[in-house]
Amino acid sequence: MSISPPNVLNYERFRQWQMRLDLSRGKPAPEQLDLSQALLDEAGQAGYRARDGFDCRNYGLPLGLPEARELGGELLGVPAAQVVAAGNSSLELMHDALAFALLHGVPQGEEGPRGAPWRAQGEIAFLCPAPGYDRHFAICEALGVRMISVPMHDDGPDMDAVESLVREDASIKGMWCMPLYSNPTGAIYADEVVRRLAAMPAAAPDFRLFWDDAYRFHHLTDTAHTTLDVIAACAAAGHAGRVLMFASLSKVTIAGGALAWLAASPGNVAWWQRCASVRSIGPDKLNQLRHVRYLRGRATLDALMARHRALLAPKFAAVDEVFRERLSNVPGVRWNVPQGGYFISLYVPPGHARRTVELAGEAGLVLTPAGAAFPYGVDPQDSHLRIAPSFASLDEVRLAAQGIAVSLLRSLETSEALAG
Amino acid sequence: MSISPPNVLNYERFRQWQMRLDLSRGKPAPEQLDLSQALLDEAGQAGYRARDGFDCRNYGLPLGLPEARELGGELLGVPAAQVVAAGNSSLELMHDALAFALLHGVPQGEEGPRGAPWRAQGEIAFLCPAPGYDRHFAICEALGVRMISVPMHDDGPDMDAVESLVREDASIKGMWCMPLYSNPTGAIYADEVVRRLAAMPAAAPDFRLFWDDAYRFHHLTDTAHTTLDVIAACAAAGHAGRVLMFASLSKVTIAGGALAWLAASPGNVAWWQRCASVRSIGPDKLNQLRHVRYLRGRATLDALMARHRALLAPKFAAVDEVFRERLSNVPGVRWNVPQGGYFISLYVPPGHARRTVELAGEAGLVLTPAGAAFPYGVDPQDSHLRIAPSFASLDEVRLAAQGIAVSLLRSLETSEALAG
Repeated sequence: MSISPPNVLNYERFRQWQMRLDLSRGKPAPEQLDLSQALLDEAGQAGYRARDGFDCRNYGLPLGLPEARELGGELLGVPAAQVVAAGNSSLELMHDALAFALLHGVPQGEEGPRGAPWRAQGEIAFLCPAPGYDRHFAICEALGVRMISVPMHDDGPDMDAVESLVREDASIKGMWCMPLYSNPTGAIYADEVVRRLAAMPAAAPDFRLFWDDAYRFHHLTDTAHTTLDVIAACAAAGHAGRVLMFASLSKVTIAGGALAWLAASPGNVAWWQRCASVRSIGPDKLNQLRHVRYLRGRATLDALMARHRALLAPKFAAVDEVFRERLSNVPGVRWNVPQGGYFISLYVPPGHARRTVELAGEAGLVLTPAGAAFPYGVDPQDSHLRIAPSFASLDEVRLAAQGIAVSLLRSLETSEALAG
Repeated sequence: MSISPPNVLNYERFRQWQMRLDLSRGKPAPEQLDLSQALLDEAGQAGYRARDGFDCRNYGLPLGLPEARELGGELLGVPAAQVVAAGNSSLELMHDALAFALLHGVPQGEEGPRGAPWRAQGEIAFLCPAPGYDRHFAICEALGVRMISVPMHDDGPDMDAVESLVREDASIKGMWCMPLYSNPTGAIYADEVVRRLAAMPAAAPDFRLFWDDAYRFHHLTDTAHTTLDVIAACAAAGHAGRVLMFASLSKVTIAGGALAWLAASPGNVAWWQRCASVRSIGPDKLNQLRHVRYLRGRATLDALMARHRALLAPKFAAVDEVFRERLSNVPGVRWNVPQGGYFISLYVPPGHARRTVELAGEAGLVLTPAGAAFPYGVDPQDSHLRIAPSFASLDEVRLAAQGIAVSLLRSLETSEALAG
């Protein structure tokens, strides 16, 4: 693909290009994957013996390799005994947690008996802060869990709405949360939001926060933001069993071949073990061992994430720069400048998101489908676009941002022409 | 542990030993895992580019790496398009297939609409040839699927019983099958059994055979037994969608870090993809790539399995030899001499299996719990023991076989003394 000239002056020029670029998903770029090339090159040197001599080649350790659980504990700020180290996908853990809850039920409170399987409790629902992560919503939709949208603010979900719903409605069994650099708005949950989520009364005694800490390490500025320790906050509020935390190294080392963690109260970990050990004799502990020996701990991880940031931040800056140049004077258009994570949200005048994505698509630029960040894929205002600038090269991102801008402007012009 | 003297003359001697040995699970021995050491040593040389240039480090390919699906196709005798290459455990695939069926339903026939979720169809049941694999039964028990025992013969399940039940009872949604060297009896399904399973009328239009081809490559004699191609047999009988085949490389390369396959009709593979792609963005394709580049195809696999056999066959022979020496004249005692797989079944006089396991345990020898090979862990005759000689060394196996024999003899003596 030819990149020059650097500016796309109008939609027709952009469309003639047929650029064949995909900004729909938050995939790491090849240069980011290269950062952990040593993990692949030196895979043969990691051996197969765990610290205690355990033969990682064989079956066993359903909760994961002890040192992989410890690494998770260090990085997530949770005791290793409360951490499960699993396969290559935290999405799997979230899906399975919901599937296990549907099929087996979950403990009611940290010390309480296991509640009835959610599938036997009639129609159940999850709260879905929106805009949110489309794959969370896809899990709910596939498993027949009703989704209830709640508004997302810059400091987290609208807590008045959340508290009122959770207090009243016992069919609400859970809630999706991405506390830091939330997908796709970049929201950072305020301490008070986390405290309220931990403390709020819930009509359902087996209510769970599905806490997807996907971008915990993924800063884009000098400020390494953190959010309040939700596991401690829940315990302090007398709701130790309320939260299931999920995280992974997918966007730290190798997107398709890293490891994922689940962290929770001891009661929840015991519940997970009972459900999961029927399913598997244990995860790939060799890959866990390779990761432990490569990453070692917090310092190595921080240094690696700084290199990710050096590759990613210019792409986010490029989008912001182009949007400021092309869209800053357009009424009803705004976007966020995320301080971490993988996405930019572009908010356009109502009724123009879908058409903008279509116009970009006709020019060969694939964006996340409009509405994807909302339950059932329906953005009631048709005004939100999710932009994933990580995978493409910096030049491509700059060009794509121009393309998005001219697609939006074309959509706005067309509707003005129809109105006029 | 001291191994000599080679013979355990009586139970008291055996108990004094306190041997601390575990023959409860079918784990490969370290020497077997060593056979694939090159897979670990040369992991750094497999690279990350698939044949078509795909970057295996990144997200994607929910059905697995194309060349890993092709390898599965070659080894399972199924077109690659009908093979899914997944993570490190076929048990996971079986669990998830049942969980997906419960939560989503499965297609009714190859071309038919998807049936209602099994969880919405009232109490459902699976046929369980017994003795069978305890982990199959654990999945059913955990997921609330009623188990119906059917007798297991040397040529497969009792087909008169199976046909009659499946024809009459629409709540029977599935059946566990291990066609070759079945766990734990070593049964080999006769061609006619496979044909009848494929052709039998089923009251449930969404009936499925869960076909666990775990020991397809695991011969212990010069005869490499095969079973009839069940996918072709089902298609020929007009029931293309009836069977889900599962297999893995866990006991070929690395028990905890290999890859698993699901093979089925195109309609079933499409169903699987719809369910599984909500759960994960793709398996660990780097590990799949390493396996493809290490194993290459049938010839390498056959050579590797011959080396496994050279390590395993003497252990099975040792058990047989000790049993012939110690138990051949004991009324009501028999055992099988398996032609493949990982287990020996020892049949003892009714009422003596549990006591024999207890006595062995008191002497430090852990056996599979009596009854484990039956639904709900209950052997109605209390007469079956499962012996897993793979993990221990040859000397240990010989000693353990002596220990089993003297434990059984002690159990028989005690009951005679009580009777007399």
